[in-house]
Amino acid sequence: MKISCTQENLSQGLNAVGHIASKNLNLPILSNILFKVENKNLTLMATNLEIGITTNIRGKIEGDGDFTVDAKLLANYISFLPKERIDLETDGDNIKVECQNQKTKIKTQLAADFPLIPKLNKDNPCTVEAKLLKQAILEVVFACSASESRPELSGVLMEFAGNNIILAATDSYRLAESRVSLIENKVGERKIIIPSKTMQEVSRVLSSFKDEESIDGVDTIEIYIGESQIMFSYNNIDIVSRLIEGQYPDYKQIIPANFTGKTKINIAELSKNIKASSLFAKNGIYDIKLDFSVPEYLTVTSSSVQAGENVSQVKAEISGEKTNIILNYKYLLDGLQTMNSEDVEIEIIDSNNPFLIRPANRDDYFYIIMPIRQ
Amino acid sequence: MKISCTQENLSQGLNAVGHIASKNLNLPILSNILFKVENKNLTLMATNLEIGITTNIRGKIEGDGDFTVDAKLLANYISFLPKERIDLETDGDNIKVECQNQKTKIKTQLAADFPLIPKLNKDNPCTVEAKLLKQAILEVVFACSASESRPELSGVLMEFAGNNIILAATDSYRLAESRVSLIENKVGERKIIIPSKTMQEVSRVLSSFKDEESIDGVDTIEIYIGESQIMFSYNNIDIVSRLIEGQYPDYKQIIPANFTGKTKINIAELSKNIKASSLFAKNGIYDIKLDFSVPEYLTVTSSSVQAGENVSQVKAEISGEKTNIILNYKYLLDGLQTMNSEDVEIEIIDSNNPFLIRPANRDDYFYIIMPIRQ
Repeated sequence: MKISCTQENLSQGLNAVGHIASKNLNLPILSNILFKVENKNLTLMATNLEIGITTNIRGKIEGDGDFTVDAKLLANYISFLPKERIDLETDGDNIKVECQNQKTKIKTQLAADFPLIPKLNKDNPCTVEAKLLKQAILEVVFACSASESRPELSGVLMEFAGNNIILAATDSYRLAESRVSLIENKVGERKIIIPSKTMQEVSRVLSSFKDEESIDGVDTIEIYIGESQIMFSYNNIDIVSRLIEGQYPDYKQIIPANFTGKTKINIAELSKNIKASSLFAKNGIYDIKLDFSVPEYLTVTSSSVQAGENVSQVKAEISGEKTNIILNYKYLLDGLQTMNSEDVEIEIIDSNNPFLIRPANRDDYFYIIMPIRQ
Repeated sequence: MKISCTQENLSQGLNAVGHIASKNLNLPILSNILFKVENKNLTLMATNLEIGITTNIRGKIEGDGDFTVDAKLLANYISFLPKERIDLETDGDNIKVECQNQKTKIKTQLAADFPLIPKLNKDNPCTVEAKLLKQAILEVVFACSASESRPELSGVLMEFAGNNIILAATDSYRLAESRVSLIENKVGERKIIIPSKTMQEVSRVLSSFKDEESIDGVDTIEIYIGESQIMFSYNNIDIVSRLIEGQYPDYKQIIPANFTGKTKINIAELSKNIKASSLFAKNGIYDIKLDFSVPEYLTVTSSSVQAGENVSQVKAEISGEKTNIILNYKYLLDGLQTMNSEDVEIEIIDSNNPFLIRPANRDDYFYIIMPIRQ
């Protein structure tokens, strides 16, 4: 089996696929990438048993066959090679790699030992603009629960509804929801829960291609849903993942129907003040107080026995309820950091009710934080 | 006691001094910075008992006094403030800090508990161009021994001789030596050993000022030497350190008088090939072989049971001895990384003798690596 391809194509394929290959004491082959040639078609695959990623590499191919090779070693090695033609050829237990003045033999392991990666049929896709999905993933995925005690909260809810997907995530202390318009929806009405790690991989793969590569049109990603699996297809890369079973909580009931106070504020200014204030929050509680009682500025305060106390005023436009609220500053910064907008809108009721933020002038995203009781 | 100064001046002073303040279970006050006002003069100080750093801050000052405050907390807080005037005022156990719309009280601890930082008289300096000293430190400090089993090897030898300082460091497996021309030498002939941590702090402080600040002349650093201490003075910052006692080994005797093979090679190309080759070196041995037997190119090889084997050729100009040598690739990369030159010159004798490199066309620096015996 012989393969000739460019350094760029091989490197990009290895990086797309190899990121999830990692050390596993029970199944060491999971740190490898599978190379498989069938009908002059080279496929690379890697899996962590929960997620499988495959891609095809263009090149000149002779013979059939397969092998697996350490993902990190090969990707690192290829990254040091010049942007020239690379020749690969199987040689017993090794793969020979040649490129200009570089000759290498790398140990391989048998493909027969590599776990099967299930594939979904590419029927009935849901098609969405890649950069919109990437943004929506980043806007919600941080709010997933890090604990596995309630598995359904460790994933992102994707609700396919008409011409939209609604992504939501909550760890029960905060909740993020982002709505994305679809180009085409053949999935119909579905609600599924996807592991947060899968969503992070999808966003990583979407980020690994530069925008200019899609300058000739809209850069799309296709989503396919099976019985207990989902597949994302983008730029010749397929990401297959299991779904999380279980019932996602009816989070919509905790969203207040009416807020009584509204604030508009510059995100950069607010973030800087929150960070300064966070230095004086209590260890392990991370509490800062936001006071909305003056129309012209928001007052941020914090204090702790160890550090001292801090009061700052941030220019704002505040209307409605003159109240204050105590929040975990980490949760607040998590939300502000995803917003690529100049201003944020804050909606509140009182000290004990959910606190909502969204980028100014956007109605397709919000992030809610439950306050710390006073 | 009241202090008014600019955010930039305070921030720069805190960063210069505060870096060595760190947690110490036996003496918690070492994580603090000392503020001391005498005769309208504000001095900041921090120490780890081995190194003491002091600086003065310009500003409007009322009253005398002193206090200590957590170095990291204050430096972080000040970094979030706008580039405006900052007012500090002592208030019982606190220091009040005000800047625009920010008001803060930070807990302080008594200055009386802060260790004394010895000062050297600023007599008989040795004056050197700051960027030359910084470069020389970076060229040798990585070769210091990380172990304390031979304390003298854990430091950098500074030999003051006529119009030069010779800096040298060795961990007995490799040796780096750099010579710096002095502007003035009132120290005379001295040989002292300075802890590697001190040299790293000096290079950090030298790097924290941008080159353009000295555009009106030569940017110099003064060096003062006492009985068992050294002081570096730069831009209003004094770094005092203990010296390491002991006899530095007579390293010059291991430098071969005559090399029999000479090679010139592009540093970027060589580094890239060494990095590729390093992936196939044996774990824990880090061995790669350099072969000098062909005049037009250097052959780099490596192999291990786990990974496989690699052979690469790097364009070179090789003359003299047709031999090969096995080296620890980490040592080789350490040396190549400090060289801001296009080409490196390699000098060799045979497989068992020291291997020497220097940036092409420079005779004030060399780095020697002892080979791995074949």
